[in-house]
Amino acid sequence: MKAVIKEFPRKGGCRVVDDRPRPTPGAGEVLVRVKATAICGTDKHIYNWDESMAKAVAPLPYVPGHEFCGEIFALGPGVQGWHVGEYVSAEMHVVSPDSRQTRTGNGHVCPKTRILGIHADGCFAEYVVVPASNVIRLDRKRVPLNVGAFLDALGNAVHTCFKVPLAGKRVLVLGYGPIGAMCAAIAHFVGAQTIYITDVQAPALERAEKWAHGARALAGKSRDIPITVLSTRGSDREQTVARIRSETDGGVDVALEISGHPNAINDGLSATDHGGDVVLLGIPSSQAITLEHYQKDLIFRGLTLHGIIGRRMYETWHQMLGLLGAGLRVEHIADLTVPLDGFEDAMAKFSASACQKAVLYPDPAYAAIPL
Amino acid sequence: MKAVIKEFPRKGGCRVVDDRPRPTPGAGEVLVRVKATAICGTDKHIYNWDESMAKAVAPLPYVPGHEFCGEIFALGPGVQGWHVGEYVSAEMHVVSPDSRQTRTGNGHVCPKTRILGIHADGCFAEYVVVPASNVIRLDRKRVPLNVGAFLDALGNAVHTCFKVPLAGKRVLVLGYGPIGAMCAAIAHFVGAQTIYITDVQAPALERAEKWAHGARALAGKSRDIPITVLSTRGSDREQTVARIRSETDGGVDVALEISGHPNAINDGLSATDHGGDVVLLGIPSSQAITLEHYQKDLIFRGLTLHGIIGRRMYETWHQMLGLLGAGLRVEHIADLTVPLDGFEDAMAKFSASACQKAVLYPDPAYAAIPL
Amino acid sequence: MKAVIKEFPRKGGCRVVDDRPRPTPGAGEVLVRVKATAICGTDKHIYNWDESMAKAVAPLPYVPGHEFCGEIFALGPGVQGWHVGEYVSAEMHVVSPDSRQTRTGNGHVCPKTRILGIHADGCFAEYVVVPASNVIRLDRKRVPLNVGAFLDALGNAVHTCFKVPLAGKRVLVLGYGPIGAMCAAIAHFVGAQTIYITDVQAPALERAEKWAHGARALAGKSRDIPITVLSTRGSDREQTVARIRSETDGGVDVALEISGHPNAINDGLSATDHGGDVVLLGIPSSQAITLEHYQKDLIFRGLTLHGIIGRRMYETWHQMLGLLGAGLRVEHIADLTVPLDGFEDAMAKFSASACQKAVLYPDPAYAAIPL
Amino acid sequence: MKAVIKEFPRKGGCRVVDDRPRPTPGAGEVLVRVKATAICGTDKHIYNWDESMAKAVAPLPYVPGHEFCGEIFALGPGVQGWHVGEYVSAEMHVVSPDSRQTRTGNGHVCPKTRILGIHADGCFAEYVVVPASNVIRLDRKRVPLNVGAFLDALGNAVHTCFKVPLAGKRVLVLGYGPIGAMCAAIAHFVGAQTIYITDVQAPALERAEKWAHGARALAGKSRDIPITVLSTRGSDREQTVARIRSETDGGVDVALEISGHPNAINDGLSATDHGGDVVLLGIPSSQAITLEHYQKDLIFRGLTLHGIIGRRMYETWHQMLGLLGAGLRVEHIADLTVPLDGFEDAMAKFSASACQKAVLYPDPAYAAIPL
Repeated sequence: MKAVIKEFPRKGGCRVVDDRPRPTPGAGEVLVRVKATAICGTDKHIYNWDESMAKAVAPLPYVPGHEFCGEIFALGPGVQGWHVGEYVSAEMHVVSPDSRQTRTGNGHVCPKTRILGIHADGCFAEYVVVPASNVIRLDRKRVPLNVGAFLDALGNAVHTCFKVPLAGKRVLVLGYGPIGAMCAAIAHFVGAQTIYITDVQAPALERAEKWAHGARALAGKSRDIPITVLSTRGSDREQTVARIRSETDGGVDVALEISGHPNAINDGLSATDHGGDVVLLGIPSSQAITLEHYQKDLIFRGLTLHGIIGRRMYETWHQMLGLLGAGLRVEHIADLTVPLDGFEDAMAKFSASACQKAVLYPDPAYAAIPL
Repeated sequence: MKAVIKEFPRKGGCRVVDDRPRPTPGAGEVLVRVKATAICGTDKHIYNWDESMAKAVAPLPYVPGHEFCGEIFALGPGVQGWHVGEYVSAEMHVVSPDSRQTRTGNGHVCPKTRILGIHADGCFAEYVVVPASNVIRLDRKRVPLNVGAFLDALGNAVHTCFKVPLAGKRVLVLGYGPIGAMCAAIAHFVGAQTIYITDVQAPALERAEKWAHGARALAGKSRDIPITVLSTRGSDREQTVARIRSETDGGVDVALEISGHPNAINDGLSATDHGGDVVLLGIPSSQAITLEHYQKDLIFRGLTLHGIIGRRMYETWHQMLGLLGAGLRVEHIADLTVPLDGFEDAMAKFSASACQKAVLYPDPAYAAIPL
Repeated sequence: MKAVIKEFPRKGGCRVVDDRPRPTPGAGEVLVRVKATAICGTDKHIYNWDESMAKAVAPLPYVPGHEFCGEIFALGPGVQGWHVGEYVSAEMHVVSPDSRQTRTGNGHVCPKTRILGIHADGCFAEYVVVPASNVIRLDRKRVPLNVGAFLDALGNAVHTCFKVPLAGKRVLVLGYGPIGAMCAAIAHFVGAQTIYITDVQAPALERAEKWAHGARALAGKSRDIPITVLSTRGSDREQTVARIRSETDGGVDVALEISGHPNAINDGLSATDHGGDVVLLGIPSSQAITLEHYQKDLIFRGLTLHGIIGRRMYETWHQMLGLLGAGLRVEHIADLTVPLDGFEDAMAKFSASACQKAVLYPDPAYAAIPL
Repeated sequence: MKAVIKEFPRKGGCRVVDDRPRPTPGAGEVLVRVKATAICGTDKHIYNWDESMAKAVAPLPYVPGHEFCGEIFALGPGVQGWHVGEYVSAEMHVVSPDSRQTRTGNGHVCPKTRILGIHADGCFAEYVVVPASNVIRLDRKRVPLNVGAFLDALGNAVHTCFKVPLAGKRVLVLGYGPIGAMCAAIAHFVGAQTIYITDVQAPALERAEKWAHGARALAGKSRDIPITVLSTRGSDREQTVARIRSETDGGVDVALEISGHPNAINDGLSATDHGGDVVLLGIPSSQAITLEHYQKDLIFRGLTLHGIIGRRMYETWHQMLGLLGAGLRVEHIADLTVPLDGFEDAMAKFSASACQKAVLYPDPAYAAIPL
């Protein structure tokens, strides 16, 4: 089958091949024909052979990729309740059924989690094998291919946005990369009172403005949708935090930190009102939370910080499919769609933030469909 | 001043007078000039001199009415932080600052609650006096008069809808009277996955259909908004509950019971999935929850029942103003607007369910404004 | 092997046999040698061939019994992580891994639950087969046999007591049967401020008094442990509820309803303070919650009612073992211990409330050990 | 009256005077005769004239001190519901009734909080004036003077311990100063499964061992109370964290960080199991949470961090009095009791950690009573 393989232990070192053997589903597993898959930040780290990833990934060569949608192609021995041809996605975190966390409904923090696409072959290929327990049935009318392709990332966003109810709340989204864009769309969809979006990159701010403009247009003249896009670049930073605190009379109720930048993390603490919540998805690469913010914000303002990892199994999936069923729109985030062969080019654009979410189609015919 | 007074201890026995002395705000109180006020179910019980109300109300003659918006006209001694002319509403439940409930942030269940418009003069008048602590500032751009008029009822709906987060959930609204209509609008606004609305009255079902149609139209062709309106009249009842359970694969996540009818209460329990929540606002007039529903639903399906009274002080108000600020539309529920002089006629229409929410304007000029 | 079998579809109709074939563990199953097992209320209903049970139980003859402790005797094919000889108990509710409830960490309300000891052979025998996923490891130093015998019932009590945190709270336990006795012990152990216990039966009240006396003695002179035992028999009922409301200045924070008697259910609602919680485990046999209590308590006092079924899988088990590890004492509740051969006699005493919890030992040597 | 005054803006600079005018209660205020008061960490910072405090405190000379118990001596104009002679304490955080936080039941994070004993005269004196709304009624049988003296600190501990329910949980207390000692006592009292206590100071570890020994003795031979005291000094640190993680099979459910030391904060994150909670009361003086702990613990293990400030008004007070009523023992923490005249000496011992909690008696007769 066609597949992207990570071949060599160095930056790049990937190749699209045509002769990767199609995997065979074992007992309790399902073989899925991949219709669409997407590039995520983790894939970039693997591509770049970042130190943290180099230690974690499966023996080379292997197939990366951990978000996709497709159709069931074959069932392994003993699999029940699924049929060939069903439209599905899958949770690629494979957890231990025996851990305390899994057994108490918290599999998303199972200490023995194995991730397909990192620790074993993933979905940048025509076919992928996943445990039947991890397969998620999709509704073709509710989940188009270019959204089904990135449900892992959308699930991160839903997990982040559902940690604390956002309806009627003052919300701040720090970082308008692809997951930040999803969070903004979700916060708006579930009735946040007012949404602030911050970023340091001009293209991200432009994308945010464009989305906010569209949301306002959809709402019609009669509503003045309160979405505010603000730069935190350089000297803008202090002013932006002060403005948010001033306009919200003390700060937002909930900050969603997606960027992972230490400045954004500290801004999230500063811009949150006394007693508020800061939900942390981004992973910093240098020390964050300064002494001042620990003292003045976390303690003296009585904040709660929520570390987010993965998706709740499978509550987050139900919530995500519920939102998509109710009309949540996130197609605009899949702003680059290419055949699987175009992997190198897509990765380059994704790495350069020239697109938000790059969707890859093993069958090139799909990539040609106009959005 | 002009006012509606309940004069005689019998059904009806009300009169619109011109010579009710304008009240004077005492220490810590505010005098508000009423711009718009609305008739609520409790007012109907007072009008009809129902036994329960006859025992509770203030000595006659007194001024009923407990939801309104208006402008501050004068401040009593010692009042700070408010200015003449501000656009406001008020929480008419006046609680004891000393009760355990009030002191732990649960004033809405304070055992010593006194309700203006029931236990003392209310707002069916040109002016009303309220404690400064209960006054709520409104934004003229966000809250039109015909919505500001019924924030007590809308607050009940918000309290009901926020008891359990509804985003992404399967929701059932039992009873499409005015508060049911508000709950449906809120559930939709905060991203419920699918909404079922049930009622036994043809006009209510028609109103629900009309609203659902409008919501679908607003959403545009690309979304198939999942709002389903179903009759539970007579033999429809069993079939409707079965259909909801079947379509939702087990029942809804959350049922909101607004009607107070014992059948609807039991239907709410039946139609809720294992482990779900039933939020109870309606007040039955005969015994509800049968043995079968207690056993099979409440216990064996592990449901949680939430009794709702009033509005959380003042969290519900923040949530409500947050939703209105974000664009929640409920103006369509104020489908009868008349001058205060038209009280008798409005009450007759309200009692006959010929309107959902009857809004009264002390200044007749406002009632003439086309919606 | 030796086993109690339900042989005939009538009241009684049970027999202790010596020649029941020892079951063989299938794939993913474990064979446990039963050390101690206990009679629970459900077993009484099966013994009496109550209508509800007659429809549910496995084809006769079968082995009832659904709480026990023992040692692993053999492992079925594919079972990992367990060893012969380990001291264990098991959750006898076998849930579907595919239900929405199980997949979101709420297996205790899985609609497809099958109960060993009801729908299939149980543990009133020398050996029992259970799925490996349902086996719970016990610590011999923390869980004596006469407590390990009734962890299903104790788990019900823990689930009930942990629905709402009880530390520092005013608590009412309605019904001092075996599970009520466990709830009282747990509420005391986790630091309830004050505990009221009500029952209508003199022996139950005496047992409660005896336990309270022991708890006070253990605490020493310096503490005046606030446990109050009160009758609700006949005319005592009204006075008892009034006394609880008066002494607690409004009612308890949390009522735990174990008896299932409609009067007790309504008393639980009456005796709970505004905004409080009523946790419902008991199953009534005639209509409960009267109109008055629905109106005045559930709605006007803003109560929350929590229906309880089974044990959370497996959070409740962790909590239960945590409490036992910390020193919770419930051995006193196992006040009848007999060999398995003594089943008929034990059932007679249990049915007559002549004991609280009857523990059966397949190996008669254990039953002879003095408590 | 007799009072400790902070006279000069430098380290020390305090004096016990006899001629401080007795304050007069204003409208809505109460004058309390102080029976016992205690020194808290904040008082040490004021005594030392630490930079942060120097900016905050009232104009000198003023009376510090912010925890006490005593008897009502006089009522200001308009005060109702209180009587001269009642035994009381008071919440010394005076909040704005108008802030969003106060109005939603979260006064403990009111941005406009003013603290008596810091921003205005406090209770290191024979008399203190407090707002009637902040007065708390005590039960003489439940709250001895030497405990009533430090209810502010005990309230911090209760707030910390009640943020997440501890019953049946694996708990770690980091720092065994006075508040750590209270947290350990509370965690034990409410049924924590196992408690680890860490500190770096030998005297603190000895005090912890002594308390644990007493707790075990009280429980009697039959219980092996799982309290473990461990050093984190120097090279012990890594080993201790490893041991906790190993013995608890992954980490504790809840860590309570009281010390404020960056090492302890990071240890708290390390030693908490996937999905657990870290409750943060201590205030660090240099940057805490390293990059590694942010990444590996907060995010990848999905922790929640709860910043704690003050006491919930007044829920924490109800919880605290509930625990004391149920028999919580914390008298051992008041291990130095002196007349108010002995302030300098008590402060010296407190600063040197030669005592845990120093209680001061304005009436020297009380200090002579043997404990």
